[in-house]
Amino acid sequence: MLEELKEKVFEANLDLVKLDLVVFTWGNVSAIDRDKGLVVIKPSGVSYDDMKASDMVVVDLNGNVVEGDLNPSSDTPTHLVLYKAFENIGGVVHTHSTWATSWAQAGKSIPALGTTHADYFYGNIPCTRKLTSKEVKNNYEVETGNVIVETFAELDANAVPGVIINNHGPFSWGTDANNAVHNAKVLEEVAKMASASLQLNPQAEIDQYLLDKHYNRKHGKDAYYGQK
Amino acid sequence: MLEELKEKVFEANLDLVKLDLVVFTWGNVSAIDRDKGLVVIKPSGVSYDDMKASDMVVVDLNGNVVEGDLNPSSDTPTHLVLYKAFENIGGVVHTHSTWATSWAQAGKSIPALGTTHADYFYGNIPCTRKLTSKEVKNNYEVETGNVIVETFAELDANAVPGVIINNHGPFSWGTDANNAVHNAKVLEEVAKMASASLQLNPQAEIDQYLLDKHYNRKHGKDAYYGQK
Amino acid sequence: MLEELKEKVFEANLDLVKLDLVVFTWGNVSAIDRDKGLVVIKPSGVSYDDMKASDMVVVDLNGNVVEGDLNPSSDTPTHLVLYKAFENIGGVVHTHSTWATSWAQAGKSIPALGTTHADYFYGNIPCTRKLTSKEVKNNYEVETGNVIVETFAELDANAVPGVIINNHGPFSWGTDANNAVHNAKVLEEVAKMASASLQLNPQAEIDQYLLDKHYNRKHGKDAYYGQK
Amino acid sequence: MLEELKEKVFEANLDLVKLDLVVFTWGNVSAIDRDKGLVVIKPSGVSYDDMKASDMVVVDLNGNVVEGDLNPSSDTPTHLVLYKAFENIGGVVHTHSTWATSWAQAGKSIPALGTTHADYFYGNIPCTRKLTSKEVKNNYEVETGNVIVETFAELDANAVPGVIINNHGPFSWGTDANNAVHNAKVLEEVAKMASASLQLNPQAEIDQYLLDKHYNRKHGKDAYYGQK
Repeated sequence: MLEELKEKVFEANLDLVKLDLVVFTWGNVSAIDRDKGLVVIKPSGVSYDDMKASDMVVVDLNGNVVEGDLNPSSDTPTHLVLYKAFENIGGVVHTHSTWATSWAQAGKSIPALGTTHADYFYGNIPCTRKLTSKEVKNNYEVETGNVIVETFAELDANAVPGVIINNHGPFSWGTDANNAVHNAKVLEEVAKMASASLQLNPQAEIDQYLLDKHYNRKHGKDAYYGQK
Repeated sequence: MLEELKEKVFEANLDLVKLDLVVFTWGNVSAIDRDKGLVVIKPSGVSYDDMKASDMVVVDLNGNVVEGDLNPSSDTPTHLVLYKAFENIGGVVHTHSTWATSWAQAGKSIPALGTTHADYFYGNIPCTRKLTSKEVKNNYEVETGNVIVETFAELDANAVPGVIINNHGPFSWGTDANNAVHNAKVLEEVAKMASASLQLNPQAEIDQYLLDKHYNRKHGKDAYYGQK
Repeated sequence: MLEELKEKVFEANLDLVKLDLVVFTWGNVSAIDRDKGLVVIKPSGVSYDDMKASDMVVVDLNGNVVEGDLNPSSDTPTHLVLYKAFENIGGVVHTHSTWATSWAQAGKSIPALGTTHADYFYGNIPCTRKLTSKEVKNNYEVETGNVIVETFAELDANAVPGVIINNHGPFSWGTDANNAVHNAKVLEEVAKMASASLQLNPQAEIDQYLLDKHYNRKHGKDAYYGQK
Repeated sequence: MLEELKEKVFEANLDLVKLDLVVFTWGNVSAIDRDKGLVVIKPSGVSYDDMKASDMVVVDLNGNVVEGDLNPSSDTPTHLVLYKAFENIGGVVHTHSTWATSWAQAGKSIPALGTTHADYFYGNIPCTRKLTSKEVKNNYEVETGNVIVETFAELDANAVPGVIINNHGPFSWGTDANNAVHNAKVLEEVAKMASASLQLNPQAEIDQYLLDKHYNRKHGKDAYYGQK
């Protein structure tokens, strides 16, 4: 079942390696079939070298394995919380990419400092609060999803397709698996450049009107970037 | 038409990837045929993997598409302003390369600190002022070109073949598409090294006579670098 | 003798190159056959390009060469001290990888700041004290092993499978040669990210309960990461 | 003439690319035949992609071209000063490698902070004083050599096979072209790690006895690293 989606999720996982976003098995991609209410996700702890499209695991939105011989990624519950909370998203990515993870370990949101950022993320990429001891001990992966949703209470997940988990690393999402991986790469690049920029100028900042312009250049009814 | 120039612009765009100056479609190269008054430029938002020489778009200096099925780069108006203002240039490059963009986000000019810089850029690589809200809202890409020209009011664009757009990223230019790409790579390298040098010594600087010597070693009538 | 182990040690040494952990001959991997009390280790100063599996040297736990035409790594005495002190380990790795060595030269332990670290190392990766003049002059490589053992007097080498030698570089270990190399790569990655995180936030730190959670997710009887 | 030496110098120049020490034509390697008093060096400004062994230029110690159709590297006079001053060296390398050049631009000597450094360089890698206006204007490349020799007035060029030219970049040397390239790579690596270490701990330093130990481990009559 869902052979086409499995192939796409498989390829998106391999793209994490090509885009230099993962070491070993430190990342996972999933995608959802909204009609069937089923999610396809990478198996847990399997090397990208050995992985086949048929190894992808199918789970329902309650986390029950519907098809697949392997355990789904241990981060599956976090992915499922995001699919339930953010209705328009079709794919989710988690990595431990170097610069995004460094911001996560610093416990700081990545500030929007330039148009590279503004082309994809409408404002800062927020860092969640730290999880409490209770949240970590009970249903840790579900609570990781919950703290993301809490962080987006006043934010539009479609306009800011990524987040930094405090002391952990980035999650990103998109219209499908491929778009979510694209946003994971953008997040890593802007994390690296924001760090370099702040080293050169701790007061660096961007004007709101430039942020507006670049985001709207690529999104919404007046977009004019790319081919129609 | 302009098949030879299309081929050169196409190859120069691919060189951006080989020289590690772009991620995804974050860059574009153009070149001008001064006799015909026509510019060849990369299409907007097309992946470097899928692009063919025949996809290059031909526009006149007013931005009208003269040949090509695809939209030209959304940065085309900026390129055109530069061709009109700087009469000796034959090629223009825009990227979001990591270190040059980090300086742009910091809003700082890249200081000349060594002979690598001096071999190509005669003095600091200037950072433009921030655009005003009005400039961003109306004719944004044209105003981006205008602020570059304003920045070079007292500078020689032939002696300083590049600039940093505040909160955005670098533009560079040269005698042709290939030379403009070459300068884009030099700009990125000196941006990286300037950042590292200032971290080691915030008072780092170069003597004017060393700047003069290295620039003149490669440029002008007394140049003696390379093969005649 | 020990042909299978030689092959594994040989492959593990080549993995150091693939994982970008060594320049020239700046690293070595060994593994032990606990039943025979013999250790297989890389020869000293031989290029990875020229090396063959049959070049691996077999030594006993007193450092006597039992088989092999080449000198064993000059770091062999350090490896042997670790095999004698840490009974559960099967492989040892030494490198001069960039970021781990930078921490060593700084003389500082690598703090646990995130879950990437916590998945593999239960707490800080300690930096040894400096060796005394006497220790350096007499039996230097043995004393390098001894200062590691001293550093782990109150630490569990199974839970913290690596160390930083002051002014020198990292050693790591694991259940076998391959696992020790895996830990060498993790150590390098967390060293890089800890440096970046502290630059962004000098007060960065992790809660003990998150450290506990991630370590136990992958280790011990309640582990649930990966495939059973 | 000197076909074998030309081949070695050619290969050593290509190694600069493989070892990631040069961009474009920003480096050159030479070697000397002491019996004949002739030096083989890379031609000026020729791309590494197009270069052939037969393009190498032969010059005498006064800088006269003895064989070759192309101009020798514009840095040839500097190489010749070094061959005349340092009698034991057989090869010389100049690059603009990233981290060594960043130290040069900072105008600071690279401190010995660890054993990686001590294995090859017995003490700090010195940075020259700035050249005077007069030195830059007259015989610039000769004076660049002279200021290196001045810097080594109290230093042993065999024990410290490299230097940083203020506001410029590194020169290194060795027993032959290949060994000089090897030292150029070591210089770049220790430059990178020294920068990272000082960021983590501005007071980082190494004990003299550890410096002695590592240098003597690889050099002199009691050396015991590698194969005899």
